[in-house]
Amino acid sequence: MTPPPASAPSSPSSSGSSAASVAGSGDRYARGLAALSLVTGTDHPAVLDPVAEIAPDLARFTVEFGYGDVWSQPGLTPRQRQIGTVAALAALGNAAPQLRFHIAGALNVGCTRREIVETCIHTTVYAGFPAALNALSAAREVFTARADSGTDPDPEPASAAVPAAEVTPAADRYARGIALLKEVDGPAGPHVVDSLADIAPDLGRFVVEYAFGDVYARTGLDLHTRELASIAMCTALGTAGPQLRVHLRAFLNVGGTREEIVTLLTQLAGYAGFPAALNGVAAAREIFAEQDAAS
Amino acid sequence: MTPPPASAPSSPSSSGSSAASVAGSGDRYARGLAALSLVTGTDHPAVLDPVAEIAPDLARFTVEFGYGDVWSQPGLTPRQRQIGTVAALAALGNAAPQLRFHIAGALNVGCTRREIVETCIHTTVYAGFPAALNALSAAREVFTARADSGTDPDPEPASAAVPAAEVTPAADRYARGIALLKEVDGPAGPHVVDSLADIAPDLGRFVVEYAFGDVYARTGLDLHTRELASIAMCTALGTAGPQLRVHLRAFLNVGGTREEIVTLLTQLAGYAGFPAALNGVAAAREIFAEQDAAS
Amino acid sequence: MTPPPASAPSSPSSSGSSAASVAGSGDRYARGLAALSLVTGTDHPAVLDPVAEIAPDLARFTVEFGYGDVWSQPGLTPRQRQIGTVAALAALGNAAPQLRFHIAGALNVGCTRREIVETCIHTTVYAGFPAALNALSAAREVFTARADSGTDPDPEPASAAVPAAEVTPAADRYARGIALLKEVDGPAGPHVVDSLADIAPDLGRFVVEYAFGDVYARTGLDLHTRELASIAMCTALGTAGPQLRVHLRAFLNVGGTREEIVTLLTQLAGYAGFPAALNGVAAAREIFAEQDAAS
Repeated sequence: MTPPPASAPSSPSSSGSSAASVAGSGDRYARGLAALSLVTGTDHPAVLDPVAEIAPDLARFTVEFGYGDVWSQPGLTPRQRQIGTVAALAALGNAAPQLRFHIAGALNVGCTRREIVETCIHTTVYAGFPAALNALSAAREVFTARADSGTDPDPEPASAAVPAAEVTPAADRYARGIALLKEVDGPAGPHVVDSLADIAPDLGRFVVEYAFGDVYARTGLDLHTRELASIAMCTALGTAGPQLRVHLRAFLNVGGTREEIVTLLTQLAGYAGFPAALNGVAAAREIFAEQDAAS
Repeated sequence: MTPPPASAPSSPSSSGSSAASVAGSGDRYARGLAALSLVTGTDHPAVLDPVAEIAPDLARFTVEFGYGDVWSQPGLTPRQRQIGTVAALAALGNAAPQLRFHIAGALNVGCTRREIVETCIHTTVYAGFPAALNALSAAREVFTARADSGTDPDPEPASAAVPAAEVTPAADRYARGIALLKEVDGPAGPHVVDSLADIAPDLGRFVVEYAFGDVYARTGLDLHTRELASIAMCTALGTAGPQLRVHLRAFLNVGGTREEIVTLLTQLAGYAGFPAALNGVAAAREIFAEQDAAS
Repeated sequence: MTPPPASAPSSPSSSGSSAASVAGSGDRYARGLAALSLVTGTDHPAVLDPVAEIAPDLARFTVEFGYGDVWSQPGLTPRQRQIGTVAALAALGNAAPQLRFHIAGALNVGCTRREIVETCIHTTVYAGFPAALNALSAAREVFTARADSGTDPDPEPASAAVPAAEVTPAADRYARGIALLKEVDGPAGPHVVDSLADIAPDLGRFVVEYAFGDVYARTGLDLHTRELASIAMCTALGTAGPQLRVHLRAFLNVGGTREEIVTLLTQLAGYAGFPAALNGVAAAREIFAEQDAAS
């Protein structure tokens, strides 16, 4: 056995590893560090140094497993990965430092401020306005810090990130929402709304008018990415089983692939735990089987 | 299409809106702003200004949807709405700024400090002592800030908010708890306790002695409002399906109405997300059908 | 009726209680205060004083119920109780003050820094890396504060808490993981992995290589305690039903007892709420019945 490839992640050891170790871990570590460099936008990411001081293996696992094994898999673009992570952490609402880190990471791999803000607005639907507003606060901090650092590759003021949309009359909101609900969710969408008519008609109307007419109808985040965010949020929360199934179908309806779904769910093991990922895969298995049976 | 009625929520634009826009959105915005003014206790609430700087539409959605559509619905009093929101956010435990905002809002619409503190104590039962203690810290901050501001309509010191209750001997706690459990939950209450007798008898005893004998037996929050808080907590958590069903029945047992339940669940879409609200309505549908079949 | 035994928990009243009160509450309060003293490492714990100022009954309930009734039960050692609480709060990720309090409490009842850090690393599996990293930050704060206070009974620097493990080649990680998965989970472990082969093979491989090959294989926390932490995390989250059942079986496989399980689940009522505890007991009932039927 050889020493670990790095006691501090920012300075990976190059001291004599055996071939077995290089094959077994060195590659994973090097690959992870390269991925982490993309996300942090620095060649020598120091973010895990405080972790390494007290728990060097946790720092190493983060690099090897989180970035070397998971993040480096094909199946999703870096941009999709970061939107998925931001969506999951925004919905969970209990990991502000990591949410800020991954908002910055999203910008570093090419997401726009607009896409970040849209993901925060999207959070209102799946986790409520408090979670969305707190995610937006995290985004504001990141945008401001980058502007203040003078090294912002995108020097527009944060306040210019997202222009106000035009306001739609109420009648149009419903019509727009129901059309989009059909496009995205197929027959299941209007069915959810119809099933609420006898018990909670206003809630059904708000699903159409607000969730779809106001939020899903927004530009700035394409439907494919919106549904990816919806899956990430429902999976991370772990309390939205029926809605996760609706949005797994919807993601496939708007052009998403099974590979993207499985890759996203696998990534969420690292951000919301293996149980969340495994339960997400169980839902995906149902939807894939249902579609295979219908085709 | 017209410009949005307000780029900053604290200064709604009055510039020439078309009739369609006024009918479609202006009314919702104006109604929302009036509701938000009640909650904040100010004519020109500035709370959304930082949101509007970076995401003007999210600020607008909060006013139009959160306050204009949802909060302004009939079916619950402002006091009930605010207790429900405080209960949900206290149980979730991940939105401290919004919890403080809505504790202040509860006081602004006429809830007493005593009711806020009782809601925090009630949180121990559904989300544990850590969530309850952190909610109480939020309440303390709000009470202190109002006292310090010199504009507190209720100038009693925070320390006088809730007098210590008399202490009840253990035997009386059990008897009081079981009587209350029967009154509130009907036969389902003692059934839960009996079903624990062979596997976790102490947990069953604690349900009776602590949850009902100590907490539900307290004055300061009437049973109708306690059960409303229980439903809000179980729905927002999303992990308490069996308990949500018990308390939907209990709420109806102590005089609550179906309209109150549906209005509360609809409101929770805004605080815990649409999936939580939709899953709550699915549970309510079961309970309503069960009661229709029995009558 | 007598006055409450203490309006401020740090100074329990000794003024004339009736025999009934002493039997009914005074004992519970005194027993709770003794337990709280063990956890805080002080004879006169002041931690609840700010609570008592505003909600004296909540402070009293914490002592009487949380420590007098629950913590003082036999069935788990103080060390097991504190690891279980740290595990639950680390997984929930929304109660930083209480997590720090109980990490210090774990050290006060004899847990080592190594065990705390291992519990944080274990958290990656059940709640993801963000929750684990935030728990580790809490641990670092506690370790540092104790070192700075000059009264640390264990004066080693925090940085020396956990040595880096040797790095294992990838092939060995899989073999080690699958062997451990069989030892811990019995046939159900490899079955979970096999069932992922057709849909999410990488996730199945990561369960083996990372969760078991990297994390469960670590020394520093024995398997009995690891499984206790797994049960605490799955129960507190409330979103990991299938995984909770796997780990209830696993805990019994590695020498844990039904009494420990029930005592732990009962304790979790205080940290994650009664619904979480009751749903945990429902899962335990299934597993116990399954094992009774098989024997």
